[in-house]
Amino acid sequence: MKQFSNLNRDDIKKTYSFQCKIEEIRQTSGPTIFTLYDGTKTIKSTGFIKPGERAFPELERGQNVSIKGQVFERDGFFEIEIKEATPLNSDLEKEFIENLEKLANQQAEPFDIPFIVDSKVLNDLRPMMLNVAKEIRKAIFSNRKIILKHHADCDGYSAGIALERAILPLIQEQHGVDSAEWFYYKRGPSKAPFYEYADVVKDLSFSIDDMNRFGQKAPLIILADNGSTEQDLLAIKKLKIYGAKVVVIDHHYPGEVVNYRVAVDEFLDAHVNPYLMGHDSTMCAGILGTEIARMINNNVHQIKHIPALAATADRSKGEAIDKYKEIAFKIGLDQEYLSKLAECIDFESYYVKFMESRGLVNDLFGADVDKQRQMVELLYKDIEKRYEKSLLAAKHYMKVEDGGKYLLVSLVADKVTSRGEYPAIGKLIGMTHDFVSNQNPSRGVISMGLGPDFITLRMSDSVNFSVSELINELTKKIPHGSIEGGGHKHAGSIKFLEGAHDEVHKLLFEKLRGF
Amino acid sequence: MKQFSNLNRDDIKKTYSFQCKIEEIRQTSGPTIFTLYDGTKTIKSTGFIKPGERAFPELERGQNVSIKGQVFERDGFFEIEIKEATPLNSDLEKEFIENLEKLANQQAEPFDIPFIVDSKVLNDLRPMMLNVAKEIRKAIFSNRKIILKHHADCDGYSAGIALERAILPLIQEQHGVDSAEWFYYKRGPSKAPFYEYADVVKDLSFSIDDMNRFGQKAPLIILADNGSTEQDLLAIKKLKIYGAKVVVIDHHYPGEVVNYRVAVDEFLDAHVNPYLMGHDSTMCAGILGTEIARMINNNVHQIKHIPALAATADRSKGEAIDKYKEIAFKIGLDQEYLSKLAECIDFESYYVKFMESRGLVNDLFGADVDKQRQMVELLYKDIEKRYEKSLLAAKHYMKVEDGGKYLLVSLVADKVTSRGEYPAIGKLIGMTHDFVSNQNPSRGVISMGLGPDFITLRMSDSVNFSVSELINELTKKIPHGSIEGGGHKHAGSIKFLEGAHDEVHKLLFEKLRGF
Amino acid sequence: MKQFSNLNRDDIKKTYSFQCKIEEIRQTSGPTIFTLYDGTKTIKSTGFIKPGERAFPELERGQNVSIKGQVFERDGFFEIEIKEATPLNSDLEKEFIENLEKLANQQAEPFDIPFIVDSKVLNDLRPMMLNVAKEIRKAIFSNRKIILKHHADCDGYSAGIALERAILPLIQEQHGVDSAEWFYYKRGPSKAPFYEYADVVKDLSFSIDDMNRFGQKAPLIILADNGSTEQDLLAIKKLKIYGAKVVVIDHHYPGEVVNYRVAVDEFLDAHVNPYLMGHDSTMCAGILGTEIARMINNNVHQIKHIPALAATADRSKGEAIDKYKEIAFKIGLDQEYLSKLAECIDFESYYVKFMESRGLVNDLFGADVDKQRQMVELLYKDIEKRYEKSLLAAKHYMKVEDGGKYLLVSLVADKVTSRGEYPAIGKLIGMTHDFVSNQNPSRGVISMGLGPDFITLRMSDSVNFSVSELINELTKKIPHGSIEGGGHKHAGSIKFLEGAHDEVHKLLFEKLRGF
Repeated sequence: MKQFSNLNRDDIKKTYSFQCKIEEIRQTSGPTIFTLYDGTKTIKSTGFIKPGERAFPELERGQNVSIKGQVFERDGFFEIEIKEATPLNSDLEKEFIENLEKLANQQAEPFDIPFIVDSKVLNDLRPMMLNVAKEIRKAIFSNRKIILKHHADCDGYSAGIALERAILPLIQEQHGVDSAEWFYYKRGPSKAPFYEYADVVKDLSFSIDDMNRFGQKAPLIILADNGSTEQDLLAIKKLKIYGAKVVVIDHHYPGEVVNYRVAVDEFLDAHVNPYLMGHDSTMCAGILGTEIARMINNNVHQIKHIPALAATADRSKGEAIDKYKEIAFKIGLDQEYLSKLAECIDFESYYVKFMESRGLVNDLFGADVDKQRQMVELLYKDIEKRYEKSLLAAKHYMKVEDGGKYLLVSLVADKVTSRGEYPAIGKLIGMTHDFVSNQNPSRGVISMGLGPDFITLRMSDSVNFSVSELINELTKKIPHGSIEGGGHKHAGSIKFLEGAHDEVHKLLFEKLRGF
Repeated sequence: MKQFSNLNRDDIKKTYSFQCKIEEIRQTSGPTIFTLYDGTKTIKSTGFIKPGERAFPELERGQNVSIKGQVFERDGFFEIEIKEATPLNSDLEKEFIENLEKLANQQAEPFDIPFIVDSKVLNDLRPMMLNVAKEIRKAIFSNRKIILKHHADCDGYSAGIALERAILPLIQEQHGVDSAEWFYYKRGPSKAPFYEYADVVKDLSFSIDDMNRFGQKAPLIILADNGSTEQDLLAIKKLKIYGAKVVVIDHHYPGEVVNYRVAVDEFLDAHVNPYLMGHDSTMCAGILGTEIARMINNNVHQIKHIPALAATADRSKGEAIDKYKEIAFKIGLDQEYLSKLAECIDFESYYVKFMESRGLVNDLFGADVDKQRQMVELLYKDIEKRYEKSLLAAKHYMKVEDGGKYLLVSLVADKVTSRGEYPAIGKLIGMTHDFVSNQNPSRGVISMGLGPDFITLRMSDSVNFSVSELINELTKKIPHGSIEGGGHKHAGSIKFLEGAHDEVHKLLFEKLRGF
Repeated sequence: MKQFSNLNRDDIKKTYSFQCKIEEIRQTSGPTIFTLYDGTKTIKSTGFIKPGERAFPELERGQNVSIKGQVFERDGFFEIEIKEATPLNSDLEKEFIENLEKLANQQAEPFDIPFIVDSKVLNDLRPMMLNVAKEIRKAIFSNRKIILKHHADCDGYSAGIALERAILPLIQEQHGVDSAEWFYYKRGPSKAPFYEYADVVKDLSFSIDDMNRFGQKAPLIILADNGSTEQDLLAIKKLKIYGAKVVVIDHHYPGEVVNYRVAVDEFLDAHVNPYLMGHDSTMCAGILGTEIARMINNNVHQIKHIPALAATADRSKGEAIDKYKEIAFKIGLDQEYLSKLAECIDFESYYVKFMESRGLVNDLFGADVDKQRQMVELLYKDIEKRYEKSLLAAKHYMKVEDGGKYLLVSLVADKVTSRGEYPAIGKLIGMTHDFVSNQNPSRGVISMGLGPDFITLRMSDSVNFSVSELINELTKKIPHGSIEGGGHKHAGSIKFLEGAHDEVHKLLFEKLRGF
C-alpha cells in the first residue's frame, strides 16, 4: 500500500487509498483540514463541501480510518484531497494499531551505549536511564510536545541543555521544518527546588489551549534536577489528569526509598535518581542528563564538557567526577574556567528568571565558543566586584557566636542584600560560610541567612545532623508554625510563618548551642 | 444582487457587482488586501497595481462602496479581485446603511424566554438583561471583538463561563473558522473588586494595537461581577474615548440609586444590577450571567448547574436559590460536591491569576465531567490540608477580645499567611470568623485581618452596621489617611496609608468596643 | 543585469541571473526558502529537491552568490525558483560587497538641515546627531531591527515618540508591507535611569531567538534619555558581543568627559550628549530626539510640539526653550495644556509600565488630537484628586527641621504612598518640595523621601552641592553599605543596604545640619 513517506512528484493528481489515524480536525472558513498519520509521516489533507462547512462530519479526532484521496502539491508540500473516508473495521483497526505501536516502539528504542565514564553508580542506574530516554524518544517520534522544566541553577541548566542538544535535532528531523523546534519543544527554568503548583497551572493552561487549538497531544514533561519529592506530587498528579507523560531526572533526596521506589513513582512514566539505588547525590543532574542525552541521540554534539561543569557547580567529588573533568580539561576548559563559567551561569540565570532564552543560554553553554569566552570575561569581572561588595557587607554585619561544638554565623537577609540584585541571600550565605570556614579551619561552622519567614542554612561537612532533621524537630515543637523546607543534607532552607519567627529562632539557637 | 453569502463554486472566474463596506485595508508587499462586508458575510478581496503599491488609494477604511470584481477560490476560500470601486452616492449609501442596521438589529435580537427559575427579582431585571444580551449579540454579528473581564472569585468565574459558553459557538458560527474564537474573544479574571486602571491600560493597549494592526473594531468589554461602582468610572470613561462598548453584569452595591440609575450608567451601553431595581445582592453574578447566556444563545449547553455553584460560593439564600440548587442536585451535583467544587475554583483561580486558561477553567466548570471529578478529588484533599494548617496557625495567633456587644477577633495578616500561598488573608479571616462564630453561637462576631495598610473584615449577619459605614467614619476623622475600601455589607476591606495605621486602629477599636 | 526592484509582471515564468546575498535560509516540510537581497530589494526564493529536504545544501546564510532562477508570482508577491546557485568568485564578490556598501551609505545619509530653533548648543552637537541619524537610517535600509529603549518619564517618551514617528514610515516604505513596522521595530520604556542588566537579558533573549528563528540581523539598540553613564556599560558590552549596534541620545551627566568622550563611547556606534561638548542637561532628550528625527526623515509629521512638552516636563529653561514653546503655543498648545499633558504622560507611563502600548502612547502624543484632548481632560481631573489626597498626607506626616542653612523636609516613603498607586514617592517628594519651597521662598530646601534602603532627594537650585557629591561622601565613610545612586545635580536618589540605614541617616543628617 502507498505510504505518506514515499509519495513523490509522480503521484501528483493520482488517487490512492491510505490507512491512517486522524490526528487533528480543524474547520477553516474554506475547507475542513484533517491531519493524518499513517505511521510513516504526518500529512495535511482537506475535505470540502462548501466554504466554512464541516466536511465528513462523521469523522472524529483519534479515529483510525481508510481514506481515498487525490494527491496535490501546494507550496512544495504534498496534500491529499479526501474523496472517501471510512472507519477501519475492528480487525483492520487492531492490526493498524499494532503496527503503529510496533513502529513507534522500534523508533523509540534508545541507544544502549557505554557511559562517557565508567562508574558503578551509573551502571546501577542504567535501566532507569534507558527508560527515561525511551519515553523521550517516543514523544519525539509520535509528535508529542516536550516541555523540559529544570531547576534554575547551573546543575539544572546543565541537565536541561544536554537534553535539549539531543532532542532538538531529532525533532527537526522528524518534522523536516525549522519551526518544529519551537512548536514541539519548550524549556523553562524553575526557581523553586520542586515543581510548584503555580508553575504547573501555567504550563498546563498553555498546553491545554494548544491541545484544543492546534490539536496537539498532551505534552511530555521532563523534570530535571527536580521532581523526585513529595512536594512535586500535586503538580505531577494534575498533569496525569490531562494525560500528560512525566519523566524525572533528579539527584535530590527523594524521601524514604522502599523497593527502589518513592511516592512519586506511582505517577511517573520513568524516573532516575541515584537515591533509588541506594546512592547519594554525587551524580548530579547535569551528569545524568548528559548520559541520557547520548542514549536519546547517538549523534549529539557539544555535551561532553557539561558533566564537569555541573559537578563543579554542585561541588561533586570522586573518581568518576575526576574522569569527567579530565575530558573537559582536554578540550581546553581548565578548572578555573569551569568555576568561572559556573558562576556566570548562576549569575545569568538569576536575570533570565522564568524565560527560556534559548539562544542566549545555548551560547553560554558553548554553542558559540567564542561568545562564551567573551561573556565569561565580561560577566566574571562584574560578578567579582559584586561578590567583593557583598562580602564586605556580610563581614561587617554578620554575627559570629561560638556555639560550643560549632561556630554559628548569622546574617539578617534583608539587611545585607538588595531586592532584585545578585547575589541573593542563598549565594551570599554560601560565600560567608566559606569565608568563616577558611578563617577557622579547625571548627565546624553553621551559617544562617535569617529572613522574616525563612532561614537559609549552610553547614560544614563535619556537622553530624541534616537540615531535614532540624525541620522535623521544629515541626514537632511548633506545630502551628507551618514549618517547611528541604534541600541537601548540609545546605537547605527552613520556611515558617512570620508569626512563628521568634519561637523558631529561640528553639533553633538553643539546639545549635546545645551540642 | 449577488451577495457574499450565496457565492458558490459556479461563480468562480465570473465577475459581479456588490455593495459593501470596507472593514479593513492592509498593504502587503504584494497586493493590497480589502476586507469587505455586505451585511451577509465578510470576504477578503485584493487589488493589485504592482507589488507593495497601494491599489485604489482613494478608498478608506469604513467607506461604503460599490465594487465590481472577479471571484476566485484560494485554499478553499472565495476571494474577489477588485476591478472597479466607487463610493456609493448618498442615496444608495443611506439605503445600504439602513439595511445593514436593520439586518444587524434583527440578528442581535435576544431570546426573550422564561428564566430557569421563576423569580420576582429576575422578572424586574428582565429588560436590563435583555439589553445586555442584545449588545453582546450585536458585537458577535458585527465582528466586534469581545473582552470579558470578571471578578477572580467563584461567582465571577461562574458568570464568565456561562457567558463564554453562549458566546463562543456563535462566534464560531459567524466566522466559520476555528481560530475565530481566539481572534474575536478573550476572557480575563481581575483580582480587584473593580476595573483597575492598570487593567484597562493593559486591555486597551492590546486592543488599540490590534485595531491598528488588524483593522479590528473597538472591542465590547463585558464586566461581570464587577463594574457597577464609582471606582470603575475612570476605566470605563477611558474605554469610551476609544469607542469601545461596555456592558456590566454585577450584584455589588453600586452606590446611591436614583431613578434606576447610578453614576456609571451615563457611560454604559447596558447594565444589570439587582440594586438598580431596589433589590439586594442575593441574585449573584453567576445567576445573572447564566440567565443572560440563555438570552444570547438559546442552544447553550452545560450551564444549568452554574447558578447553584455561584450561589453556594457567595452564600446566597432564598426560595429561588433553592430551586436552582434542585436543578444541580438532579444532575448529580449534591450540596457537598458543589461546596467542594466552589473551594477548588477559588483555589485554582488563586494560581491562575490574570491568565485566561480557557481550557483548564472550562474543564473545572465541567466541560469534561470526568476531569472535573478527578480535579475536585485531587485538589480538595490538598486544600483541606492547607486549611487545617492555616486554621491551626490562626487559632494559635489570633486575639479574641470581648468588645461588649460583639466579639472582636484579630489576626495580623503577614504573621499567619505566607506570601504567594493559598489561602491568603481574605479566605483565612473567613475561616477564622466561622470557627469563632461556631464556638460562640450566641454572640455577634467581628473578625479582622490586620495588614500594615489594610484591614479585611468579616462580620456576623447580626451586626447592625456595614463596612462602608466604617469607611465613611474613618475617612471623616482621618482625612489625611487616604482611607478607601468597599465590598459587601458584612464582608469587605479598608485600605489606608501605612502612616495612618495606628490612628485607624485606635479609632476602629474604640468604635467597635463602644457598642 | 536584472534587479529585484525592477521585476514586473512580464517577467513571470522567465529565467534570469542575479547577484545577491543570502540573508536567511529556512527549511520547511516542503521546499527550502532562501531570502535574497541584491541591494535593491529583498525577495523570497525557493529551492526544492523533495519535501523537507534541504535544497542547495552547500549554500550558507551570509554568502554572496550568483543565482539563476525562474520568476513566479504567488499571492501577488514575486518569487524566484532557484535553478542554479554558485558563490561569487573573490573579484566579483569584492565588487558586489563594495557596491552594496556604497548603496547602503548613500541611502543612510541623513538630512543635514537647519534645526527647528537656532541654538549654539545644538550646533555644537550637530556632528554627533548626524552620526546617530545615520546609524538609524543604515539600520532601516539594511533590514536591521530597531529596538528603541527610553526612560519611562515624559522626556524619555518624548524622545522615543519623535524618533518613532520618523522611523516607522521609512520601515513601511522599505518593506512595502504593513506588518513590517511590527517585525522590524519595537519600543520599550525602562524604569531605571540606566539600561539595567535584567532588561538587556530580556531584550537580547528575544533578539537572539528571532535571529536564530527568522534569520534577523542583530538589532540596533537606541537608548534615549538613558545610556551615557558607566552604569550602562555592562548592558552595552553584552549587546556588542552579539554584534548589535548601539546608539545613545542622552542629556544626563555622563561622568568625567575627556577629549569629548566618556567611558561608554568605546562601545557605542554613535552618541550624543550635551555634556560631551561641555554643556549641561538643558537640551533634554525630547529636544535632541525631535531634531534627530528630522535628520532621519525629512518628511516626519507631528513632532514640532514635542520639544516644548519635554522641556516643560524636565523644567528646562532658556532662550532656545522659549522658542520651542512659541511653536507649540502657535499650534494651540498653551503652557497650561503642556503642563497638564506632561502630567498625564507621567501618570499613564506609571501604568503602562514596560509595555510598548504603541497606539495608546501615540494618541497621547497627539496622533489623534481629539483623543488626546479627551484623555487629558479625563485623566487630569483624576490626577488632581490624587495629588490633593497625597499632598494632604505628605503635609500631615512630613517632618520639617531647620537644619541651619537649609530647611530639611523628610517623608517616610512607605508611610505616605501606597504600593502600585500613583503618585509614587519620587513624584510626591517633588510636590512636597515645591509646597515647602513656596511657603518659605527665602530658604533653600532639601526634601527627602526616606525608604528602608533608599533616599530620594530634591534640593533647591540654591543648594551648593550635588546628589553625587553626597553619594561619594557616604560611599567613602560607609564602604560596607553598598552605597549607589545618581540622577541630576539637585534631584536624584541614594541606594544602600537596609543594614546601613541608620549609619546613612546619621551621617547624612549630620552633614546637612552642618552647613
